[in-house]
Amino acid sequence: MQFITGLERKKTAGLSALMDQAMENRTVTVSGVVHTIRDMGEVVFVILRKSEGLVQCVCEADKAAFDVRVLKEESAVEVEGVVVREERAPHGFEIRLSGVKVLSEPSEALPIAVSKWKLNTSLETKLSLRPISLRNIRERAKFKVQEGLVRGFREYLSSQGFTEVRTPKITAKGAEGGSNIFKLDYFGKKAVLAQSPQFYKQTMVGVYDRVFEVGPVFRAEKHNTVRHLNEYTGLDFEMGYIESFEDVMEVEAGFLQYVRKLLEREYARELELLDVVLPETEQIPQVRFDKAKELVAEKYNRRIRNPYDLEPEEEMLIGRYFKEEYHADFVFVTHYPSKKRPFYAMDDPADRRYTLSFDLLYKGLEVTTGGQRIHDYQMLLDKIAARDMSTEGMEPYLMIFRYGMPPHGGLGIGLERLTMQLLGEQNVRETTLFPRDLNRLEP
Amino acid sequence: MQFITGLERKKTAGLSALMDQAMENRTVTVSGVVHTIRDMGEVVFVILRKSEGLVQCVCEADKAAFDVRVLKEESAVEVEGVVVREERAPHGFEIRLSGVKVLSEPSEALPIAVSKWKLNTSLETKLSLRPISLRNIRERAKFKVQEGLVRGFREYLSSQGFTEVRTPKITAKGAEGGSNIFKLDYFGKKAVLAQSPQFYKQTMVGVYDRVFEVGPVFRAEKHNTVRHLNEYTGLDFEMGYIESFEDVMEVEAGFLQYVRKLLEREYARELELLDVVLPETEQIPQVRFDKAKELVAEKYNRRIRNPYDLEPEEEMLIGRYFKEEYHADFVFVTHYPSKKRPFYAMDDPADRRYTLSFDLLYKGLEVTTGGQRIHDYQMLLDKIAARDMSTEGMEPYLMIFRYGMPPHGGLGIGLERLTMQLLGEQNVRETTLFPRDLNRLEP
Repeated sequence: MQFITGLERKKTAGLSALMDQAMENRTVTVSGVVHTIRDMGEVVFVILRKSEGLVQCVCEADKAAFDVRVLKEESAVEVEGVVVREERAPHGFEIRLSGVKVLSEPSEALPIAVSKWKLNTSLETKLSLRPISLRNIRERAKFKVQEGLVRGFREYLSSQGFTEVRTPKITAKGAEGGSNIFKLDYFGKKAVLAQSPQFYKQTMVGVYDRVFEVGPVFRAEKHNTVRHLNEYTGLDFEMGYIESFEDVMEVEAGFLQYVRKLLEREYARELELLDVVLPETEQIPQVRFDKAKELVAEKYNRRIRNPYDLEPEEEMLIGRYFKEEYHADFVFVTHYPSKKRPFYAMDDPADRRYTLSFDLLYKGLEVTTGGQRIHDYQMLLDKIAARDMSTEGMEPYLMIFRYGMPPHGGLGIGLERLTMQLLGEQNVRETTLFPRDLNRLEP
Repeated sequence: MQFITGLERKKTAGLSALMDQAMENRTVTVSGVVHTIRDMGEVVFVILRKSEGLVQCVCEADKAAFDVRVLKEESAVEVEGVVVREERAPHGFEIRLSGVKVLSEPSEALPIAVSKWKLNTSLETKLSLRPISLRNIRERAKFKVQEGLVRGFREYLSSQGFTEVRTPKITAKGAEGGSNIFKLDYFGKKAVLAQSPQFYKQTMVGVYDRVFEVGPVFRAEKHNTVRHLNEYTGLDFEMGYIESFEDVMEVEAGFLQYVRKLLEREYARELELLDVVLPETEQIPQVRFDKAKELVAEKYNRRIRNPYDLEPEEEMLIGRYFKEEYHADFVFVTHYPSKKRPFYAMDDPADRRYTLSFDLLYKGLEVTTGGQRIHDYQMLLDKIAARDMSTEGMEPYLMIFRYGMPPHGGLGIGLERLTMQLLGEQNVRETTLFPRDLNRLEP
């Protein structure tokens, strides 16, 4: 009987192993993709692309036991050679080739110059060729940083006693209501795609006190803007036994501080590649919604047109105001008007026209919405009635309040927006692996 | 200006803090839900349920400055009292109450006895009341163990150089084809819900060499069995530069070994609550598909009816065989017939009727499907043509092979099935927070 024992039989060396001083003058086997070939006549440079970075290989074309000129860009290869110190090469070493094995070959040359430092193409082309354009080193670095954001979210919340949950994406009714819901037929029943894990994460507070979820969120919004997606990744958490909705903001600030350190420590290479300056997270100003409108109206000479909503331009100006006045990249805007928040938002007992809620703006763009939720059954029923809403399909949700829920609150972060602002991108599609928008359903 | 600084202002104590010897005789504030109340006349025991476990509180009813009898089960409370050593109480201590603050109250008594050790109800009732039945200590422990499985998957793969990705769940075409696809209208275009991240994870191998994803998977299968769900969580990975499809199995075995240790270390309380005996993972037998059929036919006197497929009963018997002969809970069945695997499966060059693929059976149930994939463009086109399939809608997928892909393979694990087998449950709905099946779209 043969057994699988979990031991990896890897004969090829990774980049960090190659960078070890002890490897100098040793013969190694390295796998990777041919990133570029520079034929200098007597010498041919073959740059390998590995997931961790580039490796320079050199071959004296005439003396080699093999013909390096058979190599094509984007071929997957396994090379053999000696590691030699070379200050001018990436990571300070190169491999003097003694052998090359081609594992696979492309059947056509690439339609875009993936190996260029910056892809010199329109966003449209980049997205249409996404399966290939992502191979560009800067492009792939963006999503490595995004991985770090998700990792930081999970690690920080786990350290704070949160439990990770996975809730269904096909549901009977939308959490927020409204028209921006994708509908589907579910074995003859009407179903929708979850536009938020809201009801489920509140439900799970009754089970684990503190929970989080990282998962897809679906919005059938017909906005075609630089900041809207029809499918995005929600970083959601919900926590019980809060004393104030500020507790929720404190946890978010704690996450931002944690992720900053994580990125500095483990994603330094990508941050450098992308020229990212990490934002200040030690203290994040908080300002009331109405106060923020006033500050901006005054400083930038702007008339308040709608006292109950923030226009995108106003959000931008609030961001600018706090950058100028407090050197802050982030600002918590609190106490949004009740009529602009969902029915489950807790109204401010001091002034019921407003809610105990907040948005987090990052460089003037909303990246988080959160707040305290109503936990009292009767209060919830009253608010639903006052809004002339139907409770149809909400029975499982209402059940949790009928049988008791602690005071709680939570938030949802849009991962792609957070990444976009961190990386200084101008379009959220730049920080989405395979964006879904009004016109784009593939790749 | 007020600032949020990320410091949590928590005045209540967690269970692990309370268990600290140093807390003895100290006055503490503890929050939780009233799990049970036992009124003994002179003394009233109030058991609090916290996410980490139970806390016993005691109150001498007559002497108390408050009326403990106003408490209801499932009320959220904050209690004050002195920590006293008490061997008979959970975790070896109790709290002598000096004050109780009710944070919220249920408006009705629970329809099921959540505080019972085992919920004495049908699966049907349990699922219909899921938002409440999950509050039961054993029920919630199941999903804590499930959290551990997911954590182990991510941690192990990250340690092996895998990058985490998130791929779209609304797509233009299904990865596996077939009829088990949920369809939806996407702004006037035909769209489907992803039945697997297959195409995308292969695409991402071209970018990061090794990738994984944990995400929802949608199957419109009309099977109403104890092991099928219409929405489940896929633990998927895909890795480049493999030398053999056995490399993929080695990584899976490595994951199982890692997660075993993680569960032992950090989920011991839940494993004990649920009476779980962790499976042997050090060496997992591998057996060819055709050989496995023979072994079982011989030992259990069972005629081979269909040489190209495994019936559920056969899977069960294979599990039984390897348990009896090798004390193995897991077995890798390899070389599935080509006609039973998707077009992208790599055929075995030694015998093209079979593929370089495998399933992992756990106690006789398939919990993983994986294998090597075709990475050569022409080979893929030929196989698609041989199957009379259309390449329509597959252009972005075919693009990655046209421009070069390394040899690669991967697998998909069904999280809920893996949990079900680990916990010894008889129905996959038992290990799904909010299951979706033919009849069940809520809660």
